[in-house]
Amino acid sequence: MKKIVVDLLKERGVTVHDIALLVYELQKNYVNLSMDDAIENVEKVLLKREVQNALITGIQLDKLAEKDLLDEPLLSMIKNDESLYGIDEILALSIINIYGSIGFTNYGYLDKIKLGIIGEVDKLGKAKGVVNTFLDDIICGIAAAACARIAHSNE
Amino acid sequence: MKKIVVDLLKERGVTVHDIALLVYELQKNYVNLSMDDAIENVEKVLLKREVQNALITGIQLDKLAEKDLLDEPLLSMIKNDESLYGIDEILALSIINIYGSIGFTNYGYLDKIKLGIIGEVDKLGKAKGVVNTFLDDIICGIAAAACARIAHSNE
Amino acid sequence: MKKIVVDLLKERGVTVHDIALLVYELQKNYVNLSMDDAIENVEKVLLKREVQNALITGIQLDKLAEKDLLDEPLLSMIKNDESLYGIDEILALSIINIYGSIGFTNYGYLDKIKLGIIGEVDKLGKAKGVVNTFLDDIICGIAAAACARIAHSNE
Amino acid sequence: MKKIVVDLLKERGVTVHDIALLVYELQKNYVNLSMDDAIENVEKVLLKREVQNALITGIQLDKLAEKDLLDEPLLSMIKNDESLYGIDEILALSIINIYGSIGFTNYGYLDKIKLGIIGEVDKLGKAKGVVNTFLDDIICGIAAAACARIAHSNE
Repeated sequence: MKKIVVDLLKERGVTVHDIALLVYELQKNYVNLSMDDAIENVEKVLLKREVQNALITGIQLDKLAEKDLLDEPLLSMIKNDESLYGIDEILALSIINIYGSIGFTNYGYLDKIKLGIIGEVDKLGKAKGVVNTFLDDIICGIAAAACARIAHSNE
Repeated sequence: MKKIVVDLLKERGVTVHDIALLVYELQKNYVNLSMDDAIENVEKVLLKREVQNALITGIQLDKLAEKDLLDEPLLSMIKNDESLYGIDEILALSIINIYGSIGFTNYGYLDKIKLGIIGEVDKLGKAKGVVNTFLDDIICGIAAAACARIAHSNE
Repeated sequence: MKKIVVDLLKERGVTVHDIALLVYELQKNYVNLSMDDAIENVEKVLLKREVQNALITGIQLDKLAEKDLLDEPLLSMIKNDESLYGIDEILALSIINIYGSIGFTNYGYLDKIKLGIIGEVDKLGKAKGVVNTFLDDIICGIAAAACARIAHSNE
Repeated sequence: MKKIVVDLLKERGVTVHDIALLVYELQKNYVNLSMDDAIENVEKVLLKREVQNALITGIQLDKLAEKDLLDEPLLSMIKNDESLYGIDEILALSIINIYGSIGFTNYGYLDKIKLGIIGEVDKLGKAKGVVNTFLDDIICGIAAAACARIAHSNE
């Protein structure tokens, strides 16, 4: 299953390395962390079933929206990444919850400043024919979860 | 939008009256409640945007699974209502959260004993060609949210 | 820290065995589970930091309410286990979340039917001088989390 | 009850105006918002029971920690605002949830950059004898909830 998830991310233009870079940027001022540590923690997060399920469900909805295979008004909401839709955040939050409440701050911060790959994915999602409504929030969720994982294991 | 949501429920074999019956059963021993009150509270819950978005997203996934329009392994997980999938509960919980934490007890109880329409929907979902993986949890969520709404407005 | 948590439960009249009995009752029809397995899973849940923190915070508030050391109106709300207070459920939900969304059904069911030790704790909490407002919800949360843990590890 | 909550905030050095300023800063680039609108929305958030209960519970714990009236190890965790404690975030998230998932981004962003009153409260909480472990997260939660409220009512 982890391979499916990593392949799906790659298909959407996102590597484990991209997400690990976010983790590294967020953590470098607080803990002694190598990029290898960051990668390892992202991979551990991707082994969690609820993370995998949120990811494959969200990306599925993005892909179906790209192909116009959703009914209205859901289709337009997802295609336009409507700020009041909210289900993309709900899936991201379910990823973070697995590592407790301490991941929420990094989630919100990442989602706001659109660091690294998140900004790229968000920008791509505004191009004709591409829908990344769930993808950007899910990446934020995975990166925030990896940071929480690091904080928990550092004690 | 509320009409879209009510029509979608009807298309899946569920009426506002069915959900109000759950609310009535859950509340009748605690508060003085008529079926009209129960119906009104369910309708108020269905006016909330985040409830509507969870509902149309969940039912969309059920319908796409029925038509084999999802990719594997998501397709099989939703078709078989796999107990470890979890995203159906996530959407239901997002409905309850809007009315605070007091709705969670009724949600779990309803989901466990499969009262009224929930049992019917669940049973139907086991028939060939029908997928109600999200629908039953969403109904539990709406009924529990309506109970929480009643509790809040009774003070 | 786990010893602190187990001792605190014992001080409030609850043993790991009591909670494991709930887990056993909930799971016996679904999986092949011994009481030893149930106990082991409850103990694993009690090792999680966010579970420990929710537990020591909730029981602390119960104990402070017993000694009238909280300010009004919080004191009366906790002393009377007011149904609209909600923060007791919030702490219990934070315990369940660690094991994903599949624990919520058992949480609500347990809280509703007041099985075993939960009924005892709830009844005790109605006695003069005793406050168990947080304790019963926290026990439900730990038992539901242990059930979710079993479900996840059985795959 | 709203008066109790506003007085309690004031007692801890925080005014509705301080929180409204955060809302204004977060929203000014997105919607046409006056400070009066921001104040009104913060006040509406403070009318919600679950917000009030989270706030009085959190501030109570801060005050008890200041007076050394909590048991160890809870006392040290709250006094030192330990990053892995997590219950302060749990209470803040329960505030945001009332307005759906769209508030989480602003919550995390505020908590990270420590804008305005949050930075002040955080700094004060590091002074001898002062504990603001819950207070800063609760303010972030109220401000983020008010932003979500504005977004919902603008449609």
